[in-house]
Amino acid sequence: MASSENDAAAQTPPPPADDNSSESAPAALSKKQAKKMAKKEAKEDRKQQSSAAAAAAAGPEDDPFSGNYGDIPVVEIQSKAISGREWTEIGALVDELSGRSVLVRGVAQTIRPVSKKMAFVVLRQYVSTVQCILSVDKEFVSPQMVKFATALSKESIVDVEGIVSVPKEPIKGTTQQVEIQIRKIYCVNRAVSLLPINVEDAARSEADIQKAEFAGEQFSRVGQDTRLNYRVLDIRTPANQAIFRIQCHVEDVFRRFLRSEGFVGIHTPKLIAGSSEGGAAVFKLDYKGQPACLAQSPQLHKQMVICGGFGRVFEVGPVFRAEDSYTHRHLCEFVGLDVEMEIKEHYFEVCDIVDRLFVAMFDDLNENCKTELSAINRQYPFEPLKYLRKTLKLTFEEGIKMLQDAGVEVDPLGDLNTEVERKLGQLVREKYDTDFYILCRYPLAVRPFYTMPCYDDPKYSNSFDVFIRGEEIISGAQRVHLPELLTTRAEACGIDVKTISSYIDSFRYGAPPHGGFGVGLERVVMLFCALNNIRKTSLFPRDPQRLAP
Amino acid sequence: MASSENDAAAQTPPPPADDNSSESAPAALSKKQAKKMAKKEAKEDRKQQSSAAAAAAAGPEDDPFSGNYGDIPVVEIQSKAISGREWTEIGALVDELSGRSVLVRGVAQTIRPVSKKMAFVVLRQYVSTVQCILSVDKEFVSPQMVKFATALSKESIVDVEGIVSVPKEPIKGTTQQVEIQIRKIYCVNRAVSLLPINVEDAARSEADIQKAEFAGEQFSRVGQDTRLNYRVLDIRTPANQAIFRIQCHVEDVFRRFLRSEGFVGIHTPKLIAGSSEGGAAVFKLDYKGQPACLAQSPQLHKQMVICGGFGRVFEVGPVFRAEDSYTHRHLCEFVGLDVEMEIKEHYFEVCDIVDRLFVAMFDDLNENCKTELSAINRQYPFEPLKYLRKTLKLTFEEGIKMLQDAGVEVDPLGDLNTEVERKLGQLVREKYDTDFYILCRYPLAVRPFYTMPCYDDPKYSNSFDVFIRGEEIISGAQRVHLPELLTTRAEACGIDVKTISSYIDSFRYGAPPHGGFGVGLERVVMLFCALNNIRKTSLFPRDPQRLAP
Repeated sequence: MASSENDAAAQTPPPPADDNSSESAPAALSKKQAKKMAKKEAKEDRKQQSSAAAAAAAGPEDDPFSGNYGDIPVVEIQSKAISGREWTEIGALVDELSGRSVLVRGVAQTIRPVSKKMAFVVLRQYVSTVQCILSVDKEFVSPQMVKFATALSKESIVDVEGIVSVPKEPIKGTTQQVEIQIRKIYCVNRAVSLLPINVEDAARSEADIQKAEFAGEQFSRVGQDTRLNYRVLDIRTPANQAIFRIQCHVEDVFRRFLRSEGFVGIHTPKLIAGSSEGGAAVFKLDYKGQPACLAQSPQLHKQMVICGGFGRVFEVGPVFRAEDSYTHRHLCEFVGLDVEMEIKEHYFEVCDIVDRLFVAMFDDLNENCKTELSAINRQYPFEPLKYLRKTLKLTFEEGIKMLQDAGVEVDPLGDLNTEVERKLGQLVREKYDTDFYILCRYPLAVRPFYTMPCYDDPKYSNSFDVFIRGEEIISGAQRVHLPELLTTRAEACGIDVKTISSYIDSFRYGAPPHGGFGVGLERVVMLFCALNNIRKTSLFPRDPQRLAP
Repeated sequence: MASSENDAAAQTPPPPADDNSSESAPAALSKKQAKKMAKKEAKEDRKQQSSAAAAAAAGPEDDPFSGNYGDIPVVEIQSKAISGREWTEIGALVDELSGRSVLVRGVAQTIRPVSKKMAFVVLRQYVSTVQCILSVDKEFVSPQMVKFATALSKESIVDVEGIVSVPKEPIKGTTQQVEIQIRKIYCVNRAVSLLPINVEDAARSEADIQKAEFAGEQFSRVGQDTRLNYRVLDIRTPANQAIFRIQCHVEDVFRRFLRSEGFVGIHTPKLIAGSSEGGAAVFKLDYKGQPACLAQSPQLHKQMVICGGFGRVFEVGPVFRAEDSYTHRHLCEFVGLDVEMEIKEHYFEVCDIVDRLFVAMFDDLNENCKTELSAINRQYPFEPLKYLRKTLKLTFEEGIKMLQDAGVEVDPLGDLNTEVERKLGQLVREKYDTDFYILCRYPLAVRPFYTMPCYDDPKYSNSFDVFIRGEEIISGAQRVHLPELLTTRAEACGIDVKTISSYIDSFRYGAPPHGGFGVGLERVVMLFCALNNIRKTSLFPRDPQRLAP
């Protein structure tokens, strides 16, 4: 009965309504659609449930195998009992289990009736999928059972019990290379029959869509806003499962590397009295009658912890930016990976940590996330990141020179805009064969007030940015640890020093020279995988127009 | 020249002004004091700096060893050069280095002139301290050099170069059992001479204060509010260095354990449209013209990620509670350790994770944080936590019965207040010899709307709390994964379901049965170490009256 029934995508229902709206289209529009959709669903749902109930009710009388299928009653999934049965993970279904009976729980990704006597069900769990075959026989499976299974809605949660078998030909449509011959099938939880997003549509690469179009077929493209409105469905795709597993892996390596170098993980408050970075891009709120801000970074507090004698610290936590940025690389809330450390002599000690941390991270991702990276590659093809064993460090002046030599007009003491950064990334790649490099000694005027000026030229500062594929992901610097200079610099940058007095005072009680850096977690993942939008690497992104879901 | 000059605490300056105000005393009062103090300091500071400059200026002419000491010029600590010199960590100073020359950077914890020709300097780095001896000789040390060193203010950052020696008698006042015979001493950064908190005062145990009082001596007690106002100084004490290193270790174990069990670390938004837990205790703000809240927990979003097919997830992040709670165990912002997972049949599958995670954590802390635990114990003595290899699980009804048998009046369907929880903890300890247990099957009425009712009695729920030393640290439950029941329950609990519609809709697309729990990181550390106030385990605590530093 082993089968080579492979192309799970072949049988899709008519594509659901979809907006191909651009990123900046108002989310409000989609919400209306959502409401309409929800009503429709609820109706469908009731219809479906009553017919299912009818089927189940009809079952027992005329089907000797009626115990082998059906909807699991709610009471049974309310922690009624512990049966002691063992579930096998779909990812663990391998050849060695051939002939063995297994019990799996998964999502019904596709359900394909072949005839009244046979059907295929592809079950998915996390990133793994397996093909299950339901075929009428004299011992376990009745035609009613096939009917029950084929009436299930896609994305429903299903328990399947059956025998593992190895098909003669390799299976193309699933991750697992075995099949399950179903003996029992129960529905744990039903999805509405009309889903706002078809997960298979959401998982399809642009290349596949175009190939199908060329062949005269029509697949639905799922727009960015629709994806985000129905994120719970969208994140079920292999690429998204992989993206957020890689994100977690990045954090694992970040933490493990820094811990091994003597850093202590800390947590600083997000509710603060003054703004941490200055400027208007701050969310304000009332804190028990006092005006408060959401921290734009843990900058001030992580420095205070260094003044508190912790030597080397890091923090992973949300940072909030009320900026009206509608770009592919800005969010109003993102996860900051922050580092702060005492330095003995030079901020290059900080650059050294950046260098070793990120080379270790890239190595680790390439080595240990192969499955995830290829899942992303299948939907969003990208070139592997080029990086050197010892990270290239250029000065800002050298960068300016490279740009000028290439005919790009730039202000030698101004900031680089996104376009110029991209161009420089290109030039660096051509000359040094790397997508990852450090640009140091930035002009003082374009850095925050707490940045230490250069000893030899106060127009420049002991600071750096780090780039991946021509986009900035890290900013770092030596900090001013002298309270008088800090006050002067804050005032020069238009900061109300009263609002940061406890920060400035921290440097009066014996403050070690120190420096640090901040990284955006979403940007690391986005740029390592060359994804085109930061919203793809945030589970529930927040931008100026999106506060939901 | 090796010495047994030990009691670093013997010579302290007159105790600084201090408030012994209770925890709930308004922070505003202390702020005024702070301002006054800052002014005074600034004046002292200027005085001190000019006299130091004078001394340094006088040096070169009449002292052949003038190159061996002095203030390092600012320009030298502005990343001027990388000298290639090697610094030794104070914690790495051991017998084996005897006779070797080392360079260390540390905080001048105490400076004791013995005569015009000799002085002791205790240097501190993180949790380690070492005694350094400065004694006039013909090769390196002049009387002017001794004068320079003894004029340094405590808590200044100092570089010392010298020879390691092993004293004949053990050193009681420092962690390291070697001394450094100073040959060079430079000040990297000066502390103001009049510190708002004396670190040695802040580090003293109540027992030591009382012992001194009994002997007719007077030590200053540093009140909780003063500590928090000058947190940068307060966290330099051994106990505080230990507390926050343990906190980081707790997070290490949490993450490592869950990763090894197949959980994925996630980050969910803190800026949300509706409140996540209902009730009034929510911080509100304006989000680009839309009303927004700060998430009181990642509850809704972590469940949505489970609906998104991630199977098992965890999150470490800030949670915000606008409650007017002035207790020893409530904060307005704390770090939540959150877990959510699919369950196959029973919420005891969640309890099993709690059990194994926390037993692993307690084992690990006891095994790997001995130094830190004893540092805390020296200032805040506590009994080691009693816990069983397999965590005790009692039902709420059993708990009520134990309380009633002990003559405590309790509502069998109401919540337990703090006092009753403590009492139950005591009874459990007496009967089962454990400080750590799970109380399950809580009355439904006292649990949040998303809690799954019991299959056999809707007055109860599939939920649990976990207690350490009679105080709650964890709340967990099976969740309602059926959208209709969820809507009914939300309405019954007075939640405006419109504000959580995208959450409720998440369960319409195929939702697996699931459960999870949330832990307060600060509470774990507080209760493991039996500390009396949660403000001791938060770096920069936020309560209804404290938004700074």
